[in-house]
Amino acid sequence: MRTTNRRNFLRAGAAASIAGAIAPALAMPSGAADDKASASGPAAQGVTRTLARYIVGARYEDLPANVRKEGTRTLLNWIGVAVGGSHHETVDRAVAALAPFSGPAQASLLGRRDRFDIMNAAFVNGVSSHIFDFDDTHLKTIIHPAGPVASAILALSEYHPVSGKDFLNALVLGIETECRIGNAVYPNHYDVGWHITGTAGVFGAAAAAGKLLGLSEQQMVWALGLAASQPVGLRESFGSMNKSFNPGRAASNGLFAALLASKNYTSSEGMIEAKRGWANTISTKQDYRQITEGLGQRYEAALNTYKPFACGIVIHPAIDAAIQLRNENRLTADQIARIDLKVHPLVLELTGKKTPQIGLEGKFSVYHSVAVAIIEGAAGEKQYSDRAVRDPQVIALRDRVSAIVDPSVKPEQVDMTITLKDGRTLHKHIEHAIGSVEVPMTDQQLEAKFTDLADAVLPAAQVRKLIETCWQVERLPNAAAIAKAGVLQK
Amino acid sequence: MRTTNRRNFLRAGAAASIAGAIAPALAMPSGAADDKASASGPAAQGVTRTLARYIVGARYEDLPANVRKEGTRTLLNWIGVAVGGSHHETVDRAVAALAPFSGPAQASLLGRRDRFDIMNAAFVNGVSSHIFDFDDTHLKTIIHPAGPVASAILALSEYHPVSGKDFLNALVLGIETECRIGNAVYPNHYDVGWHITGTAGVFGAAAAAGKLLGLSEQQMVWALGLAASQPVGLRESFGSMNKSFNPGRAASNGLFAALLASKNYTSSEGMIEAKRGWANTISTKQDYRQITEGLGQRYEAALNTYKPFACGIVIHPAIDAAIQLRNENRLTADQIARIDLKVHPLVLELTGKKTPQIGLEGKFSVYHSVAVAIIEGAAGEKQYSDRAVRDPQVIALRDRVSAIVDPSVKPEQVDMTITLKDGRTLHKHIEHAIGSVEVPMTDQQLEAKFTDLADAVLPAAQVRKLIETCWQVERLPNAAAIAKAGVLQK
Repeated sequence: MRTTNRRNFLRAGAAASIAGAIAPALAMPSGAADDKASASGPAAQGVTRTLARYIVGARYEDLPANVRKEGTRTLLNWIGVAVGGSHHETVDRAVAALAPFSGPAQASLLGRRDRFDIMNAAFVNGVSSHIFDFDDTHLKTIIHPAGPVASAILALSEYHPVSGKDFLNALVLGIETECRIGNAVYPNHYDVGWHITGTAGVFGAAAAAGKLLGLSEQQMVWALGLAASQPVGLRESFGSMNKSFNPGRAASNGLFAALLASKNYTSSEGMIEAKRGWANTISTKQDYRQITEGLGQRYEAALNTYKPFACGIVIHPAIDAAIQLRNENRLTADQIARIDLKVHPLVLELTGKKTPQIGLEGKFSVYHSVAVAIIEGAAGEKQYSDRAVRDPQVIALRDRVSAIVDPSVKPEQVDMTITLKDGRTLHKHIEHAIGSVEVPMTDQQLEAKFTDLADAVLPAAQVRKLIETCWQVERLPNAAAIAKAGVLQK
Repeated sequence: MRTTNRRNFLRAGAAASIAGAIAPALAMPSGAADDKASASGPAAQGVTRTLARYIVGARYEDLPANVRKEGTRTLLNWIGVAVGGSHHETVDRAVAALAPFSGPAQASLLGRRDRFDIMNAAFVNGVSSHIFDFDDTHLKTIIHPAGPVASAILALSEYHPVSGKDFLNALVLGIETECRIGNAVYPNHYDVGWHITGTAGVFGAAAAAGKLLGLSEQQMVWALGLAASQPVGLRESFGSMNKSFNPGRAASNGLFAALLASKNYTSSEGMIEAKRGWANTISTKQDYRQITEGLGQRYEAALNTYKPFACGIVIHPAIDAAIQLRNENRLTADQIARIDLKVHPLVLELTGKKTPQIGLEGKFSVYHSVAVAIIEGAAGEKQYSDRAVRDPQVIALRDRVSAIVDPSVKPEQVDMTITLKDGRTLHKHIEHAIGSVEVPMTDQQLEAKFTDLADAVLPAAQVRKLIETCWQVERLPNAAAIAKAGVLQK
């Protein structure tokens, strides 16, 4: 099984050259213990520098094959969601606000004709990619890794030519940076109210952009320090356009930090771990080993996941069960007498809306989600439109869905029984939904998701070519080809 | 092969992740009662909206005369320090980094020939104005109020024409916004590590820019929300170029927020006070009355102070005493046998350096400061140059300065006795140093400080004209005249 292989690879995988290069920094004595440092983090010195040294030294050739593959899948998924979101009114308003102030037309806005300077382009593409809450997820931290990182380097790649290999390496290193920093402070940092994608994401964007700019180790320390000075986003903004703002601004802030550092604009040493540094200021938990241990040996970037369904992850098991039973039995709605679910308590707490009236409310209804998945065989953005939640056939089936809480059902599980009008019953137990680490989306499923999102924006032939360009990233002589393939032609 | 450890780890992670992953899609009800609110803050509803309503409605005509006057003095002082710092290598590096990406040449960089788009210009002017740590101070919070606010609206005024009256009104309202928000969270927020000028300053910049852009009340709520999403700056950055970065980035972030809001880019309601809003996320103290009470009646902007001396405020009483005794007695160094100080403990803790070697170290030496003030009658940026700390005459007098801690001496006090070689003794007790709220710098002293800073950058006649333009701000038909008067001519 594919996931088993991947796990073995992760455990066995070791990039000797990188490990050797960073060993001196990791061996750095902890010295005077920080009086606020976490009990779990023995060393509060040299964290920023160790990370910077790793980023500066890490080569594409050091990446294990599974990490390259997952990085490529991350890129594909991100381009798809960014193109898909690119004509939402959120993006229209951002573009209207910034157009009078943009610099030279250096970089593409995915899915659009406009071109902005690289920092404004990074912002807009970051916004587009988070519109549908349909981007990638690092499950250990709930960081959406690609938004800040890919937005920054996609724009930069159009100004500062780099190979596809270097682009992919920077993408992985940026994701590694943000997810490791996220691990160091999660969950406390998230629980108190920070939108961790925006706060940790700035580091990822700075690291990836700094890597492509060829920063020295010292410059990378400064870039990370300037990134630490610009955290973005509060959870309170969720439900407004401000949520998509956060990965976009994390991208442009990180790029800003890297560009300043490239001209020797300084910051302090140890901005992540110092007494009054980022981690102590912004979190009550600081586990610095999450940042420095196993660099080049274990990859958070290999743990990235992609949502198959355009709604909160808590109802993904139910949708997965519905689609599997539908496809295995060629079910139609008129065959079904009733659908009974046994769910984890969170499902009804968060998505217990019985009669959603608009598309967005459908995302908070396990009843709608199951019904529309049975009828349409999918739960993408189209299945959460106003059209979908008002479809009489969907409503009729929705009213036949029942859900009860079963304390033995785990959050990643569901138990579904469909009773047919002819008296038969169909049963499905989901242990891990599609899109989880355990049951990842296949490449084909990622392509289908991409196409479903992008075909409303770009011509079908261009969508196909864009998908191919993403898959071929490692062979591109100039990574700017990705951005150029993703825009509306004049 | 799956190990038990790994499975458990993933499962535990998944449980937490699922709850978090769905939360992003939840639209948190706005203005809900805050279960984390401070005991001192009775209302945790409507804070952001109350503030927004005030900012949108407040007119220039409503400002008391003393507030207009203090706002004008704030402007004058800020222009002086920004021009003075504008050719520091910190600014050169920022300009070099950003020039390739700037938009149209919409706005001036004070003291320079370059012109940038308004957001990049706001950033650079904010950096310039904080270079010497010589800008204004709101003593209740240690916020340097003008940096974020004036930088944002000076740039905006060159793109979006406004009268001098409206400019001054916006400056006051921006300062009011940032200082009131600072009051609500100080000192806890500062103590934990935030550079409060950058975190509260974003709100001030957004409020002032939004006021000039004519935002509606709802748009102002959004602008403040987008500002809340972009706090800038950690105290750990002090001592590097990152410190000056913070007011600059606060300015550009606040302007960014206001511009987006002007095109109806939304945020949530109550981003300052909500359960997961700014104050609860970023501080353990939330006293919302500081924000909402007495709006339009009492003005934090009237409490602004200006440093007469280019060093930490803790040694200002000693410098003040030295200059007063010098001037009253026409003292020269060769008359002096010894100088004895009784000081508050902080003076020696923070500025007890006996033998500074470079200019910057002089700022941390009460001995150098007193000696150079006696000899040169000032303690401006020139008195903290490498030249000044290495001057043999200064060193000789410095070695005759003694300081002892006296617990009865308050931080704002000093007791100085000068023993002359002829046996006479001179004595001075300072209750409040010049530059405090109690003993403000006179207009003439502000002008002298301005001239001392600006005459190294601009021709003398232009410096004089720039000072006059600042004093005349209320009579300017177009406030863009200020920025235009402050640049190097081609």
